[in-house]
Amino acid sequence: MSATDPLAVGVLGYRFMGKAHSNALARLPMFFPDAPAVERHTLIGRQEEPLREAADRFGFERVATDWEDVVDEVDAFYNLGPNFVHAEPSIAALEAGTHVFCEKPLAPTLEEAEAMRDAAAESDALAGCAFNYRFVPAIRYAKRLVDDGDLGEIRHVRGRYLQDWLVDPGAPWSWRNDEELAGSGALGDLGAHTIDLARFLVGERTGEIREVSGHLETFVDERPVEGEDDSRPVTVDDAYAALVEFESGAMGNFEASRFADGHKNDHTIEINGSDGSLKFSLERLNELEYKGPDQRGYETILVTDESDPYVDHWWPPGHVLGWEHTFVHENYEFLSSIAAGSDFAPSFEDGYRVQRVLDAVERSDERGERVSLA
Amino acid sequence: MSATDPLAVGVLGYRFMGKAHSNALARLPMFFPDAPAVERHTLIGRQEEPLREAADRFGFERVATDWEDVVDEVDAFYNLGPNFVHAEPSIAALEAGTHVFCEKPLAPTLEEAEAMRDAAAESDALAGCAFNYRFVPAIRYAKRLVDDGDLGEIRHVRGRYLQDWLVDPGAPWSWRNDEELAGSGALGDLGAHTIDLARFLVGERTGEIREVSGHLETFVDERPVEGEDDSRPVTVDDAYAALVEFESGAMGNFEASRFADGHKNDHTIEINGSDGSLKFSLERLNELEYKGPDQRGYETILVTDESDPYVDHWWPPGHVLGWEHTFVHENYEFLSSIAAGSDFAPSFEDGYRVQRVLDAVERSDERGERVSLA
Amino acid sequence: MSATDPLAVGVLGYRFMGKAHSNALARLPMFFPDAPAVERHTLIGRQEEPLREAADRFGFERVATDWEDVVDEVDAFYNLGPNFVHAEPSIAALEAGTHVFCEKPLAPTLEEAEAMRDAAAESDALAGCAFNYRFVPAIRYAKRLVDDGDLGEIRHVRGRYLQDWLVDPGAPWSWRNDEELAGSGALGDLGAHTIDLARFLVGERTGEIREVSGHLETFVDERPVEGEDDSRPVTVDDAYAALVEFESGAMGNFEASRFADGHKNDHTIEINGSDGSLKFSLERLNELEYKGPDQRGYETILVTDESDPYVDHWWPPGHVLGWEHTFVHENYEFLSSIAAGSDFAPSFEDGYRVQRVLDAVERSDERGERVSLA
Amino acid sequence: MSATDPLAVGVLGYRFMGKAHSNALARLPMFFPDAPAVERHTLIGRQEEPLREAADRFGFERVATDWEDVVDEVDAFYNLGPNFVHAEPSIAALEAGTHVFCEKPLAPTLEEAEAMRDAAAESDALAGCAFNYRFVPAIRYAKRLVDDGDLGEIRHVRGRYLQDWLVDPGAPWSWRNDEELAGSGALGDLGAHTIDLARFLVGERTGEIREVSGHLETFVDERPVEGEDDSRPVTVDDAYAALVEFESGAMGNFEASRFADGHKNDHTIEINGSDGSLKFSLERLNELEYKGPDQRGYETILVTDESDPYVDHWWPPGHVLGWEHTFVHENYEFLSSIAAGSDFAPSFEDGYRVQRVLDAVERSDERGERVSLA
Repeated sequence: MSATDPLAVGVLGYRFMGKAHSNALARLPMFFPDAPAVERHTLIGRQEEPLREAADRFGFERVATDWEDVVDEVDAFYNLGPNFVHAEPSIAALEAGTHVFCEKPLAPTLEEAEAMRDAAAESDALAGCAFNYRFVPAIRYAKRLVDDGDLGEIRHVRGRYLQDWLVDPGAPWSWRNDEELAGSGALGDLGAHTIDLARFLVGERTGEIREVSGHLETFVDERPVEGEDDSRPVTVDDAYAALVEFESGAMGNFEASRFADGHKNDHTIEINGSDGSLKFSLERLNELEYKGPDQRGYETILVTDESDPYVDHWWPPGHVLGWEHTFVHENYEFLSSIAAGSDFAPSFEDGYRVQRVLDAVERSDERGERVSLA
Repeated sequence: MSATDPLAVGVLGYRFMGKAHSNALARLPMFFPDAPAVERHTLIGRQEEPLREAADRFGFERVATDWEDVVDEVDAFYNLGPNFVHAEPSIAALEAGTHVFCEKPLAPTLEEAEAMRDAAAESDALAGCAFNYRFVPAIRYAKRLVDDGDLGEIRHVRGRYLQDWLVDPGAPWSWRNDEELAGSGALGDLGAHTIDLARFLVGERTGEIREVSGHLETFVDERPVEGEDDSRPVTVDDAYAALVEFESGAMGNFEASRFADGHKNDHTIEINGSDGSLKFSLERLNELEYKGPDQRGYETILVTDESDPYVDHWWPPGHVLGWEHTFVHENYEFLSSIAAGSDFAPSFEDGYRVQRVLDAVERSDERGERVSLA
Repeated sequence: MSATDPLAVGVLGYRFMGKAHSNALARLPMFFPDAPAVERHTLIGRQEEPLREAADRFGFERVATDWEDVVDEVDAFYNLGPNFVHAEPSIAALEAGTHVFCEKPLAPTLEEAEAMRDAAAESDALAGCAFNYRFVPAIRYAKRLVDDGDLGEIRHVRGRYLQDWLVDPGAPWSWRNDEELAGSGALGDLGAHTIDLARFLVGERTGEIREVSGHLETFVDERPVEGEDDSRPVTVDDAYAALVEFESGAMGNFEASRFADGHKNDHTIEINGSDGSLKFSLERLNELEYKGPDQRGYETILVTDESDPYVDHWWPPGHVLGWEHTFVHENYEFLSSIAAGSDFAPSFEDGYRVQRVLDAVERSDERGERVSLA
Repeated sequence: MSATDPLAVGVLGYRFMGKAHSNALARLPMFFPDAPAVERHTLIGRQEEPLREAADRFGFERVATDWEDVVDEVDAFYNLGPNFVHAEPSIAALEAGTHVFCEKPLAPTLEEAEAMRDAAAESDALAGCAFNYRFVPAIRYAKRLVDDGDLGEIRHVRGRYLQDWLVDPGAPWSWRNDEELAGSGALGDLGAHTIDLARFLVGERTGEIREVSGHLETFVDERPVEGEDDSRPVTVDDAYAALVEFESGAMGNFEASRFADGHKNDHTIEINGSDGSLKFSLERLNELEYKGPDQRGYETILVTDESDPYVDHWWPPGHVLGWEHTFVHENYEFLSSIAAGSDFAPSFEDGYRVQRVLDAVERSDERGERVSLA
C-alpha cells in the first residue's frame, strides 16, 4: 500500500464482536483523525444471508464465506470468531504477512495458543490479542499510578468477573458450553480478561504469576438445545476460582462465574500496595477508586478529564463514555502501530501468557494440587 | 423528497453540540437501521477554516457561513448555536416549512421562546427542542414506573445539576457568562435540563409548576478574557436554586451551580411518592435507584437489559452506554417522527414551558417574592 | 456540692430522649472516666406507673410528677419533654441557678425561645441545647477541615433530613402533628437539626443566615386517633424547604420531609467551597466524604481512627459507632463544662438563633416573600 | 443460685475484649430487661495495677491474678484472653460445671480445640464461642432470607476480612505475630470470623466445607519490639486465602489480610444463589444488600426497623447501631440460654468446626495440595 492508501481490513465474525469492532472502525475518523484510514474490505462468515445483511449495516463492501480467500487479500485480518476458529486462520494470515487482531482468549488450548504465539514471533506482521479492557481510560490511569510507584510494593491483586446468564438451568445450550468449541467456560471467556488485566496493571512490579491453585465447577450438567426437544451436555466450567502467587510474592485471587445472580457484566479489579490501593468496576467504567499514600480512604475519581487517557478525543469532563469506547481505543492503537511499524500490546505473547495461567488453573483443579509455572 | 431520498440535514454549530449530533447521525445506520436515511448536507458556521475542517470530520458535504442560505434548502435544520442565535434562524426555517431541531434552552428570553413556540404552532414542520436527557434508557424506564403508578402520588421532586468549571476565579470569560448572549447562566444552561426532566418524569401526575421562589447568585463578578490583558463582567448567575409547587401540591426543589467543587457533570433527579421513590444520576447514567411499593430500600437497577428502552439496539446486558448515546436516541426519535409525520416531544411548546419556569425564577429572585405561573 | 459529690441530674421525659440521655449518663464512667460523676437523681413524668418502670430501667432513684419539685433540688435539669414544655421549666430551673440541658428545638415559638435565651443570659447556670449531631466524630472532623480553611471560601451548603413515617395517610395522629404542642412539624423537628449543623459547620466562615425563602406543605390534613374512631387535624407542616443566603453570600438549601418514602433517618449535609467539598449522611455516620484541594473526587474517610474526635474513648479503627454515641459525647461535654465552669455550645443562644431561622421560614411561606433576618 | 440471684460472671482479660463484654453486661438491664441479672464478679489478669483500674471502670467487685481461683467460684467464666490461654482455663471451668464463653478462635491449634470441644460435650455447663458477628441484626436478617429459601440453591459464598495495621514494616511486634501465642495470624484472627459466618449463613443449605485449597503469606518477616532496640520474627501469616467446596457443591472463596491498605475492619460476605444474592459489610453493619427473586439489582436495606432482629430493644428506625451492640446481643443470648437451660450457638462444637477448616487451610498451604475434610 502507499502512504495514502487506506488499510484494508478483513473481519471474520459478524455478531457481537463483529459489531463492536466495525463500530470502532467507523468512529475513528471523527474522533481520532490521526488514525490511519481504514477500508472495511471484507466481512467473513458462514451463513450468506445474515452475513450480507451484517456487511451492509457494518459498512463492508464485500463478503466471503471462506477465510482462506481473504487472509492474504487484506492488510489486516480481524479474527473475531469463536475460540476454536482462532488458531488456523490467524496463523495463515500471519504466514501471509497480514497483520492479525484476534479476540480473546487467544485459543481454546495452550497448544494452539503456543502455535499462534510462535507464528507471530516468526512473522513480520503485527499480532494483537484484543483484550479491550486495557483501553478503559480509568484502567490506563490506574496503570500509570502503579507504574509511578504510588501504591508502593504490591501485596494483593483481586479480580472477579461475575455474570448471571446461566443461573436458569433452562437457559439454552450454546457453543460457549462446549469444551471442543470454547476450550473452557467462565475461565477462558471471563478469566482471560481478568488475568490479562492483572498482568497489565501490576506485572512490571510483581513479575509473572508463578504458582496457581485452581478450582472449576459446573453447576448444571446439561442444557436444552434451543428449538429442539433435546439437551446437550455442558462440558466446560460454569465458574472458576484461582489463588496465585506472583514472582514478587504478591498474592492474587481471581474468580469468575456465570451463576452470580444479579451481576450482569461485573468485572472488578482491586489492588492493595504498601502505600496505596485501588479498585475498578467495569459496570462503572468511568470511575476509579484510589487511595493514595496521604489518604485515609478511597477517592472516587471520575476519569473523564481532558488530561485523562483518550478522553480529549471525546467529550468535556463528566460526559461519560461507554463499554464500546474501549474498542475504539484499541483499534486506534492497533492500527496506529501498524502504520508506525511499532509494537503493539497486548500481543500474541501476552495472549499466550494468559493462556498458560488458564491452563495451570485447569491442571491444578484436575490434580488437586498447586501448579508451578516456573 | 421521495420515499427513498435521504433527509437532508443542515446543521448550525460545529463545536460541542455539532460534534454530538453529527456523531449521532453517523451512527444511526449501524444501530437503528429502521431510522430514515440522512444526508449530512450542510454545516453552518462563521469561521471558514475550522468550519471546513469540522465538516470534513463530521461528514458534511457542504459548508455555509450564512444560515439564510440553508434553512430552505434542507429538510431539517439543526440549530446548535449559542442561545442568542436560536430564535431568528429557527423561526425562518419553520416559516420555510423546514423541520427544526433546536438545542436547549429554547431561547435566552421568554419573549423569544414565545415567538419560537408560536412559529412552531403555525408551521406544518416539526419543531423539537433537544433535551437529550429524556432519552437516557434509565430515565425512560423511570418514567414508565411513574406513569404506571408504581410510585403512587408524587410528593417530592428534587433536581440538581452540579459542575465546577468556574470555581477558579481565573477561569476565562466566555459567552456563557454574558446575559446578552446566553440569557442566563447556570439557570438556563443546566436548570433548563432539570426543569424539563422533572416535567417529563412527573408532569402527567403532578400537572405543571404553578408557583416558584427563586434565588440566583453570582460569586465572581468579572473574569479575565483569554489571551488579553483584560477582564469582562459576568452578567449571569453562577448558581440558582428554586422551590416550586406543582399543580398537584407536590414540592419541587431545583438547583444548579458551576461552583460545586468536585462535581463535573452531576445531574441528579430524585422523586418520592406515596408508594415508592427513585433516584438518577447522570454520572452513573446506566443505573436507576428504585424503591418500589414492596421494598424497604432502593434497588440499584442496571438499565442495560434487552427489554430496556433502546438497549436492544446496542450491546448485551451490563455493557454500559455513555453520554453520547442519548443523542443517537433523540435523533432517532426526531427523524423517525419526521418520516412518520407524527408528533415529537420535547417540542418547542415544551421548551417554552421550561422557559416560563426559568423566567419565573429570575423574576422571583429580583422581586424577592413567590411568583405564580397560573 | 463539694468537689467529690456527684452532679445530681433531674430528667424530665422518660421516652425516646429520656432513654437516650439516661443511657449516655450510664456509659460515661466506663468510657469517659474523666467526666464528672453523676447521680441519676429524679426522673420526671406525668404517668406514675410507666414513669416508675422507666426510672428502674434507667437507673433513677426517685420519680416526680411535678417538675417544680425538682428543678431547684438538682444540680442539672434535663428538659427532654415535648416542645411545648420546654420554656417554663427550663426558665424556672435557670432562675433557681440550676444548669439546664434542653432538647431541640429550643421552643415551639420564637417568643418562647427568646424568653429562654434571655433567662439563660441572666443566669449563672449553664444552658445547653441538645443538638446531638454536633457530636458525631465525622462532623467534628468536618468542622476542623472547614475551620482550617481546607475547603476555601464556602459557596454552597445543602442540608436535607428525610423520613417516611407519615407516608401512610393512616399513620396515627400524635402531638408532633399539632401546632400548639409541637410548634411546627418537619420544620422544627428535623429542620432545627439541619440549621444548627449548618451554622456549626460553616458559621465562622459564612456568618449567620441573613435571608430566607421558605415553603411549607401539609400533604395529609387529618389523621386517625389511635384506638379511637375519630380523627384530628394536622396543623403543622409535613415537609419544608428553604433557600437561604448567608452573610458571606454563600447559598443554603435546606429541606426536610416526613413523606420521603424509603428514607428512615436520612440527614445529609453537603458543603462546596472554592477549594474543596464534603458530604455527610447520618445513616452512615462513621463516614465522611471529603474532597480536598489536591483531590479530584470525594474520599470516603472512615472517621474511626484513634486520632479522630472522641474515638480514642471507644474501640480500635473500623469498629463503628452508632447513633446513641452522640448522646454520650454531648453529655460528656455538657457535664464537663459544668464541672469546669466553662461555656458550652450549643447554647440557648444557639437554639434561639436556629429558632429565628425556623420562624423566618414560616413567615416567608405565609407572606410569599423573602424574609430578612438582619 | 436461686431464681432471683444474679449470675456471677468471672472475666479473664481486661483489654479490648474485656471492655467489649463488660460494656455489654452493663447495658443489658436498660435495654434487655428480660435478660438474667448479672453480677460482674471477678476480673482476672496478670498485672495488678492496670487490672484494678480496669475492674473499677468495668464495674467488677473483685480482681484475681490466677484464673484457677475463679473458675469454680462463678456461674459463668468468660475467657477473653489471648488464644494460647483459651484451652486450659476453659476446660477447667467446664469440668467444674461452670458455663464458659470463650473468645474466638476457639484455640491456637486443632488439638486444643478438639480437647475443648470434648470437654464441652462432657460437661452439663454451657460452652459458647463468641463469634459476635452472628449477632449483627443485618446478618440474622440475612440468615432468615437464606433459610426461607429466598436465595434458592446456594452457588457462591465469598468472605473477606481486610485490615491494614501491619502495612508498615515498622509496626511493632505483638503476640498476634507469634505462632506459639496466637496459633496463626490473619487466618485465625480474621478468617475464623469469616468461616463461622459462612457456616452460620449457608450451612443448613450447603452442608459443611468438605475440601480446601489454602494459601498463606508472610510479607514482613520480623518486626521491631516496642521500646527495645531489637526485633522479633513474625511466625504467623500476614494474609491467607482459601478456595473451598461445600458438601452441596457450592464454591467458597475466603481471604483475610492485615496488609490491605485503606481497609480498617472491612469484613464482607457475599452469597449468590439460584434465585437471589446478598452482600454485607461490617463497616456498614446496619445495611444489607439484597437481590430477591423478583428483583433486578441489589436493594439496600437499612436493617433498623422495629421488626428487625434485636432492633426493638434499641432506637427508632434509622437510628443506627454500632459494632459494640453485637456484644450486647450475644451476651443476652448466652446468658438467657444459661437461665433457660437451653442450647446456645455458636458452641464449642462450632468453634471446633471452624478450627478444622483453618487447620486444613494451613495443611493445604504446606503440602501444596487440596485437603479433604471428609
